[in-house]
Amino acid sequence: MTRTPLWTAIADTLRRELAAGLYPPGAKLPTEAALAARFGVNRHTLRHALSVLAQEGLVHSRRGAGVFAAARPVEYPLGRRVRFHQNLRAAGQIPQRALLRLETRPADAEEARALRMEPGAQVHVYEGVSLADGLPLAHFLSIFPAARFPALPERLRQTSSVTAALLAEGLADYTRAETRLTAVPAGPVQALHLRLREGAPLLRSRALNVDTAGQPVEYGETHYAGERLTLVVSADDPSVSP
Amino acid sequence: MTRTPLWTAIADTLRRELAAGLYPPGAKLPTEAALAARFGVNRHTLRHALSVLAQEGLVHSRRGAGVFAAARPVEYPLGRRVRFHQNLRAAGQIPQRALLRLETRPADAEEARALRMEPGAQVHVYEGVSLADGLPLAHFLSIFPAARFPALPERLRQTSSVTAALLAEGLADYTRAETRLTAVPAGPVQALHLRLREGAPLLRSRALNVDTAGQPVEYGETHYAGERLTLVVSADDPSVSP
Repeated sequence: MTRTPLWTAIADTLRRELAAGLYPPGAKLPTEAALAARFGVNRHTLRHALSVLAQEGLVHSRRGAGVFAAARPVEYPLGRRVRFHQNLRAAGQIPQRALLRLETRPADAEEARALRMEPGAQVHVYEGVSLADGLPLAHFLSIFPAARFPALPERLRQTSSVTAALLAEGLADYTRAETRLTAVPAGPVQALHLRLREGAPLLRSRALNVDTAGQPVEYGETHYAGERLTLVVSADDPSVSP
Repeated sequence: MTRTPLWTAIADTLRRELAAGLYPPGAKLPTEAALAARFGVNRHTLRHALSVLAQEGLVHSRRGAGVFAAARPVEYPLGRRVRFHQNLRAAGQIPQRALLRLETRPADAEEARALRMEPGAQVHVYEGVSLADGLPLAHFLSIFPAARFPALPERLRQTSSVTAALLAEGLADYTRAETRLTAVPAGPVQALHLRLREGAPLLRSRALNVDTAGQPVEYGETHYAGERLTLVVSADDPSVSP
């Protein structure tokens, strides 16, 4: 009968302690040296246990800073009305945005098809990274019809809330017509923006928002940092009424 | 002014040809030797171009068999009623199932919570791999209350349709109460079942189905092969009526 490897037993113990909240989400774990001393093992064995927990998404290491308990994933309801800022505040977090790009240019064929515009019609391109409490959650690329919302770029420079910017351009309400979800590996640029390793799993969303008459107002492609976020689709949708 | 690297130009050309359907989904591309000869480059350059396309999910290589155009992702509606077999047939594919496990045992704390049962009450555990046209799409693990559906394991041995098996146990209709989605990397066991590389991105779903009175009937955790499937959440939900 084979003995249980030490690293397995250490990983089990730490897993239980993480689950019990002894190291709360975001908290720094003791140093490798301290943990190795606690379990009476060498650092190699201890690192093996930690790497298993890291692969399970329970801890992550920051170079030069140590090993940290993973933050609880943010819950993000995907209902009739999808509102990033509201969702994050409801999760007790502070929504932030890093703006990467604001341009106005002609729509390509896919954008024109999604927004039901003439190919080549002008669109505003809005690209950035959404963060919660300083941690990148998503890289977004959103396309808006320019003729309908002529001053939208200026609004988006003033506020990180797309809802508020569209309201300032006269759009009182909009709803989510469709969301298409898949999982993809992070490429080098996504990995940089999201502070993940290349190849890390991302949840990719392609979504269309429409006005009350069903006219497209926004087409967006968003890459969510997989381990940091849980999208929730509920039959009981509190956003059904505005 | 730097010249465009050859591998970039080759990748662009092949990308266009794939998009135009010259190599339809699932079709075998010409051999590396043939492609290298076509473009007048050495195999190293050609492989660089192919590896870029592989990273984009446009082609995949099967050891000993060659390089293939990626299959179009299956579209999987996530509405009020989520029906695997129906979804696949609607996509023109043949649904199949590889049964891994059928057991009846006491529920653990999380299962009991999800199904709103007494901890330790008996549940049926149903585990397997769902395939479409021979390609693994998802690894599923579903939990059912045993007292309510006493003969469910026998039904599930006879049919790969969960809907049909539940109907045979007296459940005429059930709806999706909640789906929680995130992206995770494939562990070694998932990679084996899904025929993917370890670390490949998976879409993980945790879902609760309920009967017409709102009572839980199934709690399932499913790992979808990210690149092979697109979940679609639509405001216009044809499954709203049974």
